Amino acid sequence: MAYFETVNKIAYEGSRSTNPYAFKFYNPEEIVAGKTMEEHLRFAMAYWHTLTAGGSDPFGAETAVRSWDKLNGLDKAKARVEAAFEFLEKMNLPYFCFHDVDIAPEGASLREFYSNLDIIVERIEQGMKSSGKKLLWNTANMFTNPRYLHGAGSTCNADVFAHAAAQVKKGLEIGKQLGAENYVFWGGREGYETLLNTDLGLELDNIARLFGLAVDYAKEIGFDAQFLIEPKPKEPTKHQYDFDAATTISFLQKYGLDKHFKLNLEANHATLAGHTFEHELRVARINGMLGSLDANQGDTLLGWDTDEFPVNIYDATLTLYEVLKNGGLGRGGINFDAKVRRPSFEPEDLFLAHIAGMDTYAKGLKVAAKLIEDRVFDDFIDKRYSSFKEGVGADIVSGKATLASLAEYALNNENPRRNESGRQELLKATLNQYILAE
Amino acid sequence: MAYFETVNKIAYEGSRSTNPYAFKFYNPEEIVAGKTMEEHLRFAMAYWHTLTAGGSDPFGAETAVRSWDKLNGLDKAKARVEAAFEFLEKMNLPYFCFHDVDIAPEGASLREFYSNLDIIVERIEQGMKSSGKKLLWNTANMFTNPRYLHGAGSTCNADVFAHAAAQVKKGLEIGKQLGAENYVFWGGREGYETLLNTDLGLELDNIARLFGLAVDYAKEIGFDAQFLIEPKPKEPTKHQYDFDAATTISFLQKYGLDKHFKLNLEANHATLAGHTFEHELRVARINGMLGSLDANQGDTLLGWDTDEFPVNIYDATLTLYEVLKNGGLGRGGINFDAKVRRPSFEPEDLFLAHIAGMDTYAKGLKVAAKLIEDRVFDDFIDKRYSSFKEGVGADIVSGKATLASLAEYALNNENPRRNESGRQELLKATLNQYILAE
Amino acid sequence: MAYFETVNKIAYEGSRSTNPYAFKFYNPEEIVAGKTMEEHLRFAMAYWHTLTAGGSDPFGAETAVRSWDKLNGLDKAKARVEAAFEFLEKMNLPYFCFHDVDIAPEGASLREFYSNLDIIVERIEQGMKSSGKKLLWNTANMFTNPRYLHGAGSTCNADVFAHAAAQVKKGLEIGKQLGAENYVFWGGREGYETLLNTDLGLELDNIARLFGLAVDYAKEIGFDAQFLIEPKPKEPTKHQYDFDAATTISFLQKYGLDKHFKLNLEANHATLAGHTFEHELRVARINGMLGSLDANQGDTLLGWDTDEFPVNIYDATLTLYEVLKNGGLGRGGINFDAKVRRPSFEPEDLFLAHIAGMDTYAKGLKVAAKLIEDRVFDDFIDKRYSSFKEGVGADIVSGKATLASLAEYALNNENPRRNESGRQELLKATLNQYILAE
Amino acid sequence: MAYFETVNKIAYEGSRSTNPYAFKFYNPEEIVAGKTMEEHLRFAMAYWHTLTAGGSDPFGAETAVRSWDKLNGLDKAKARVEAAFEFLEKMNLPYFCFHDVDIAPEGASLREFYSNLDIIVERIEQGMKSSGKKLLWNTANMFTNPRYLHGAGSTCNADVFAHAAAQVKKGLEIGKQLGAENYVFWGGREGYETLLNTDLGLELDNIARLFGLAVDYAKEIGFDAQFLIEPKPKEPTKHQYDFDAATTISFLQKYGLDKHFKLNLEANHATLAGHTFEHELRVARINGMLGSLDANQGDTLLGWDTDEFPVNIYDATLTLYEVLKNGGLGRGGINFDAKVRRPSFEPEDLFLAHIAGMDTYAKGLKVAAKLIEDRVFDDFIDKRYSSFKEGVGADIVSGKATLASLAEYALNNENPRRNESGRQELLKATLNQYILAE
Repeated sequence: MAYFETVNKIAYEGSRSTNPYAFKFYNPEEIVAGKTMEEHLRFAMAYWHTLTAGGSDPFGAETAVRSWDKLNGLDKAKARVEAAFEFLEKMNLPYFCFHDVDIAPEGASLREFYSNLDIIVERIEQGMKSSGKKLLWNTANMFTNPRYLHGAGSTCNADVFAHAAAQVKKGLEIGKQLGAENYVFWGGREGYETLLNTDLGLELDNIARLFGLAVDYAKEIGFDAQFLIEPKPKEPTKHQYDFDAATTISFLQKYGLDKHFKLNLEANHATLAGHTFEHELRVARINGMLGSLDANQGDTLLGWDTDEFPVNIYDATLTLYEVLKNGGLGRGGINFDAKVRRPSFEPEDLFLAHIAGMDTYAKGLKVAAKLIEDRVFDDFIDKRYSSFKEGVGADIVSGKATLASLAEYALNNENPRRNESGRQELLKATLNQYILAE
Repeated sequence: MAYFETVNKIAYEGSRSTNPYAFKFYNPEEIVAGKTMEEHLRFAMAYWHTLTAGGSDPFGAETAVRSWDKLNGLDKAKARVEAAFEFLEKMNLPYFCFHDVDIAPEGASLREFYSNLDIIVERIEQGMKSSGKKLLWNTANMFTNPRYLHGAGSTCNADVFAHAAAQVKKGLEIGKQLGAENYVFWGGREGYETLLNTDLGLELDNIARLFGLAVDYAKEIGFDAQFLIEPKPKEPTKHQYDFDAATTISFLQKYGLDKHFKLNLEANHATLAGHTFEHELRVARINGMLGSLDANQGDTLLGWDTDEFPVNIYDATLTLYEVLKNGGLGRGGINFDAKVRRPSFEPEDLFLAHIAGMDTYAKGLKVAAKLIEDRVFDDFIDKRYSSFKEGVGADIVSGKATLASLAEYALNNENPRRNESGRQELLKATLNQYILAE
Repeated sequence: MAYFETVNKIAYEGSRSTNPYAFKFYNPEEIVAGKTMEEHLRFAMAYWHTLTAGGSDPFGAETAVRSWDKLNGLDKAKARVEAAFEFLEKMNLPYFCFHDVDIAPEGASLREFYSNLDIIVERIEQGMKSSGKKLLWNTANMFTNPRYLHGAGSTCNADVFAHAAAQVKKGLEIGKQLGAENYVFWGGREGYETLLNTDLGLELDNIARLFGLAVDYAKEIGFDAQFLIEPKPKEPTKHQYDFDAATTISFLQKYGLDKHFKLNLEANHATLAGHTFEHELRVARINGMLGSLDANQGDTLLGWDTDEFPVNIYDATLTLYEVLKNGGLGRGGINFDAKVRRPSFEPEDLFLAHIAGMDTYAKGLKVAAKLIEDRVFDDFIDKRYSSFKEGVGADIVSGKATLASLAEYALNNENPRRNESGRQELLKATLNQYILAE
Repeated sequence: MAYFETVNKIAYEGSRSTNPYAFKFYNPEEIVAGKTMEEHLRFAMAYWHTLTAGGSDPFGAETAVRSWDKLNGLDKAKARVEAAFEFLEKMNLPYFCFHDVDIAPEGASLREFYSNLDIIVERIEQGMKSSGKKLLWNTANMFTNPRYLHGAGSTCNADVFAHAAAQVKKGLEIGKQLGAENYVFWGGREGYETLLNTDLGLELDNIARLFGLAVDYAKEIGFDAQFLIEPKPKEPTKHQYDFDAATTISFLQKYGLDKHFKLNLEANHATLAGHTFEHELRVARINGMLGSLDANQGDTLLGWDTDEFPVNIYDATLTLYEVLKNGGLGRGGINFDAKVRRPSFEPEDLFLAHIAGMDTYAKGLKVAAKLIEDRVFDDFIDKRYSSFKEGVGADIVSGKATLASLAEYALNNENPRRNESGRQELLKATLNQYILAE
């Protein structure tokens, strides 16, 4: 392995050290809440950010220095496969995720793209066998190519829809071949720039049709992965249809697709939609739709998707809290949909950034597990809502009460139950104590 | 009539004039798109902003100078009823809307509140009879009183839920008595401050229970108004459950309430949720859920509900465009949920502000009607999506296509249909031409 | 002492405990970076949030339950003084801050206000003597009264300007009487709602005039407090003139007031202006303008001033980092301009919230001190900019280089110094390690 | 001319027409407020958006179809020069603007870049001579090349600073050669990603040094253009130093550069900083710093620089209002720093978009001129502030008043001048009437 020569000294030291490649909090074998950290935290590498992207932004060219930069076409794609497995092994990451265009060049035609994919997928398959690494999910990129400038499932051009369908078909076949645990849809162009030229109803119907066709084909070929939709409110388009968890659930309900799909939630997408990540997780959880995570963080003072590596311990703790309360993520995992900053352009930064993120999630897991074990919030909440477990409260919940019976009760209730403080400040201080004092 | 002595000269001049109380664009009897302006624009006065509120803000005391300020309790409430009808007549507004606490003092007990309401509702009923003014909708204020500090339908205190139910019951009875066209729920406290102390699932279930009880009781007493929910994403709470149109529709679907409710959409709430108003209207429209409008405007550079009178011609045009495309608002109307700025504290400002809003909507109506008549956007959209009306596109829409058939088509389609420009800039210039050149 | 009977058990336990009133991190006598925590963290109670305010918001009435609520007028004001000192002692807070209207009722005239102030200030003076508590700063509230609806220093009404001047005069006299360390201006109404009716130039000139008069009068009466301006970008007005640190410094420079003023920076005001708090502190620091802090935190997903108690350890650490780098705050301090949430309405919450904030700042102080002691960021930065200490870099800094000499150098520099990674992810992980592993 | 064959029918029809390339409001020869429209509106084409850019975004490849796409290197650069003049002529645009890298390839070395620039600048010079088109401003792009990943003037690498200086030197020489009216600095990388690795003070000092060197060199070579700084708050970096007009003015004051610089203000940058464009213009105007405009518009519901063509009539009117009040822009002009949307990828869209923008500004000019002619806002403002022209108000303005004299006045002023309504709603309705009824 030769692509990341400079980094060979990753360690699980458990203490601050002079080795910048040492984990402080993450230890895959450590038991937390009855399972190893590795079992809880099914970490995945995002192929695109780690192998394909180069640090460009709307005002700047690529900065990343990568040892495969001098290659081209399939040679570069092959080198990236090797580099990917080297990285996964060095980082001790069990999973990876990719879009079709991340791994293979599109070539001059769909036929050539299929062929390129076949070549590379075979290499990936070999790499998986020899390394034991697994595919958390794959997806089809239907937003970068100019073809999709008006959308893929929501395009106004039926031939483009057909092309998208062809990409999805191949994506499902690749997923089956590589034993993917999930298959993801992120609709980067499924939205609109202006309502003035948009048939919103038809576009939504057509996206649902594409999803339905995918469900059918997966069944046909015996690909039993979990389907996931990844909400995002905007960017690149002015408005994307899968705005947030609630909107996406509403869409799935309307088209009867909720049995076939769960959500792949991303932290930065949550904040772009005006929500905390824990809100999105909670909404998905109580609807039985929490599928998988794209782990990153945004900058709430900036208005675009910064996809930073997650280093906020509050977010990590509350994220893992929801995951534990969900009984884990099932077939889902924690994909680092995160990129090193443009000025962090050296290969070493890829390692340092993943360590930062994995350590933050590891610490978050431990804090969340302790909060649950101590029933810190559970007990408070149980007591807080206890009035719905007896008397008039129980009648409300059971459906026995009517407006008339409740009004009668209220009119004659001379000593209504006093409200009690929500104790938000105490609870936040307690959270701090668990985070800072473990 | 003595409450607004200084304003007696409202006119429909149709030209700029030295009379500041002259409408320039609104003429109730003018025919637009086959109906009078008055029939299209079922304008309503918001009782709270016009009669009850006083211009306070989180950093400032009330500033409004009102002739009933020296009165107290029921006397003040009675004076406001008289002032309300004087205002409605002078402004030529056909409808009004109120919360229970706007019209009558709460008193020391629920019983006293009921009694105060009875006294005032009788006066309102008389005023309606003699003036011909109508009640667009009423609602129960379940957010101002400290009782509701943890919510009403979503409270953790069952006795508070019962009190809320009692308010809703009375609200439905008042609505029936006054012939209200709609009954509205806005959940100002139906949300959370922090997830740390919140049972999200129970709270949502309980809100749905309250709505279900209201539907049952309305049926029981023969009150056939349209039920409406008004989405708002946040403020006063950190997060409100009826975040936006899509979220609210999702909630109604989940609990099987979608047959009984439509949406009362507010412009400023749309922008707080990160949407344009026309987006929210479109989402409601294609789901058959567009019920009524709260007309105002926010300031997208500010992060709170400014409830300004609507004076933006773009917003008004696109709002009325959706309304016309919806075939009107049915039993709904256009309620000015808008307040004069704190420094616009004189009674005259109430008139000037309503004229500003009505004129803007009148102009917007005329522009929207012309855009539809000329099929400016319709023709563009029809042509844009025409590929779904034949060949492979028709197969996609009809359900005949499969992933496999589409992939086959894409692989063998040597001359795929080229994308065409979305012409966004041309369409926006055309909109400008219609607005500026009528 | 009888106002906060329920809370008598505040402790410095240094470990998590069942006593919710126990500090975990704050110990006033603990030595950090050469001084006691108490010397570093000159904590102050905000009179308005703790004694005067009641938990109202734009959609809700007051919720706070306070033992002096049954009193009125001067009696209530006197009770609040007693309660204030009880609170300061129980919380072990050395300082407090107030606006004139917080402590005494305005009465029916300026003369009566002066008289009420005299009565209350005398009581405060006595309380200070017997308790040893000190006044960090006072100020005049020139934003709540309707008089100031168009501004105070920026009003269009010269009589209002005169009234403001009279309040400032009294404020300076009170400050002198009570030995205030600082005198603050926050311009809640010094801004505009719309430029359409605003003479921006005159308004700015007039504010500068008011500040100049205050400087003159303080000198005249021998009041040697530090003058402070508190920037805020918006709210209550659409735009406030003291938008942020840079804008305020620009204003002070323009009018030659920069010698007389420093900045009182508030965390939530920073985020409303689109900045991190550490950014505002850094800007003030490098300009020699860092005066004092209003400690709180906002919610960056909400657009208004939430004034929450500070519980974010990242913010606290980076805040104290700047303070330590500044050599402390001099005569300034750390005022909890923070309010308990509306649902945290019980007296106990005032204590719990201050403990939460003080503990967070205490932990932040310790982490910041260690980061500086270990030169974690200092060494990185020194190395990063080292090219400006020799050769062409030194020529640039010394002013010896010209465009021509630099172009010549660049044209002939065949091996330009390579850029190195900014290592942002590593630095953030290191910050985490210092925060989480102390 | 062969690059834009499809568009040959631009017309000044003055009425809505079937020709989409017809202006409706812009007529270069029409006299408004004493000058021709062309004299008022010194429109410029942005070379980068029109000739160089291709419609990519962070999630998508270039979409633009341009007839020079098949060429490479200097050939492509030469073709673009020809296309530029064709476009300028067809659009009747008198000015253009460019960055160095827009017009010529950077090549493999600074020396080669200089050489490429020389070749292209000569062609541009010829084109200017034969067409009469003029250079509004040029600038050096010091943000795209990876070299500048840590900044140009604010870099931590002295060799990079030298390279930046070499680019500025060449830029000044090119500006002189082509008779540029202005020279612009936009600091896309002059900011920080994180304060953790940033020496804020040194970076600001160094930027000031670069500006000072540029001033010196321009003087040395006799290039008398107006220097301009273009503020932008963020994007691409987390925080840029020239945050907004006030911050930039503060910077220029601090370093004594305010005599040499004015501001080039951009509409979308204003909104990203939380300001209206008219606010930024007003701030610049009252400080004598209004230099030139980058005309575009953002989307306040999106958090990045969308650089849309300006089609909002309110913004255009208030922009031109400030410009007229400023007595025009002097040597500045109105540069369309605006790009067609990614789905508007056809060459025709470049024309349609410029027509949309020019028409909007033309209409805005006419409305603004009429508002000024009728003294709509001037008279209101004069009356509003009239209390400062006599009595105590005049004493305040003249400096005769003291805090003591004003307090004395306030105490004894039994009938203080009442506040009057700010009439914001009326003024906004009046603005609407002027916009909609011309």
